[in-house]
Amino acid sequence: MNRIHREQLLQQLNWRYATKQFDAQRKISPEDWSTLEEALVLTPSSFGLQPWKFVVVADQQTREQLVGASWGQRQVADASHLVVLAAKQDLNERDVNAYIQRIAEVRGVASSSLDGMRELMVGSLIQGMDVKARTAWASRQVYIALGNLLNSAALLGIDACPMEGIEPQKYNEILGLTARGLSAVVVCALGYRAATDKYASLNKVRFTKQEVLVNI
Amino acid sequence: MNRIHREQLLQQLNWRYATKQFDAQRKISPEDWSTLEEALVLTPSSFGLQPWKFVVVADQQTREQLVGASWGQRQVADASHLVVLAAKQDLNERDVNAYIQRIAEVRGVASSSLDGMRELMVGSLIQGMDVKARTAWASRQVYIALGNLLNSAALLGIDACPMEGIEPQKYNEILGLTARGLSAVVVCALGYRAATDKYASLNKVRFTKQEVLVNI
Repeated sequence: MNRIHREQLLQQLNWRYATKQFDAQRKISPEDWSTLEEALVLTPSSFGLQPWKFVVVADQQTREQLVGASWGQRQVADASHLVVLAAKQDLNERDVNAYIQRIAEVRGVASSSLDGMRELMVGSLIQGMDVKARTAWASRQVYIALGNLLNSAALLGIDACPMEGIEPQKYNEILGLTARGLSAVVVCALGYRAATDKYASLNKVRFTKQEVLVNI
Repeated sequence: MNRIHREQLLQQLNWRYATKQFDAQRKISPEDWSTLEEALVLTPSSFGLQPWKFVVVADQQTREQLVGASWGQRQVADASHLVVLAAKQDLNERDVNAYIQRIAEVRGVASSSLDGMRELMVGSLIQGMDVKARTAWASRQVYIALGNLLNSAALLGIDACPMEGIEPQKYNEILGLTARGLSAVVVCALGYRAATDKYASLNKVRFTKQEVLVNI
């Protein structure tokens, strides 16, 4: 265990902002990018089921196309890296089985010893929810990954812009996500702020602690 | 800007796990807790609207009651701190106005200069969505806060257990959330792992990078 200082955490969270204009020349180093990928993979999820894939779009032509599916927001094409956070559609028993298999593999136990856990997941997520509810559940999980990614990037001094203002259907078409059983939920552009981004110097707006926190 | 080392980020994210058993004697220090509260307040949200409140339940009797609304999971009562992440129900124009007012205050501009932004938010969130869609949107936003909280706690070496397995209606009743225009979405217990928690030493299970990441 190697904890960071309180001040450093708050400094970095205050330093971050939703970057509107990226320096298109400045790229995230392979070491930093690999760390962010690893951080994404480590995102916690309900039951540990990870009902997601993270689509990293490097192809510049595709990224230009995605600008048109993002209300013209240039961050999608200009940032160093672009991640489309996608939820698995209609998660099913096969997904649960794959996860159980993975637990057995990582922990060196028989998958039959996990039958109780398997039944709990199938009962609550597959049998206990219709497709719509299950997909909504998966989408919510994806936002944990977004929170983790934004936090991790800030701590590494990497700028980011989370973007809900996208047309998911167009993203799904352009990236072929539907065929993969996925749907785009939210997007995150990552890289470095341009010196000309006037939003960088604006005061951060949050409600006060007194407004946001309720003590009982 | 004061970035942390890549290794430190990954060390802490690997160190964290969903704590099943907390040391009921060990409390988070006031300085650390205040930092976590500050980190929560700094959570990014769509438009910056922060459609949430974070309910910190200190009263031990109330926490014992909440165990019964959490399928008997003792973390709710035993952890040092308990946060109920709640979404604003039926967010309305008043909320947008309060936010616009807050921007004007923090940035020292006339609120009338923010009319365009105000209209964009009202158009897309209030007029463009029915109550159900808007509440679902707010719930998704809350998961950004959860991701941020889990990440921040891990970096400070504080254990946490995110919990979806709660009965929101019972939480709303016990905590009087409905009267405040809120609904419980997800819960996070925070503190320190008990030496006897056998889950602490299990290998972390994630799908591989190759399975989770799609490169295009």
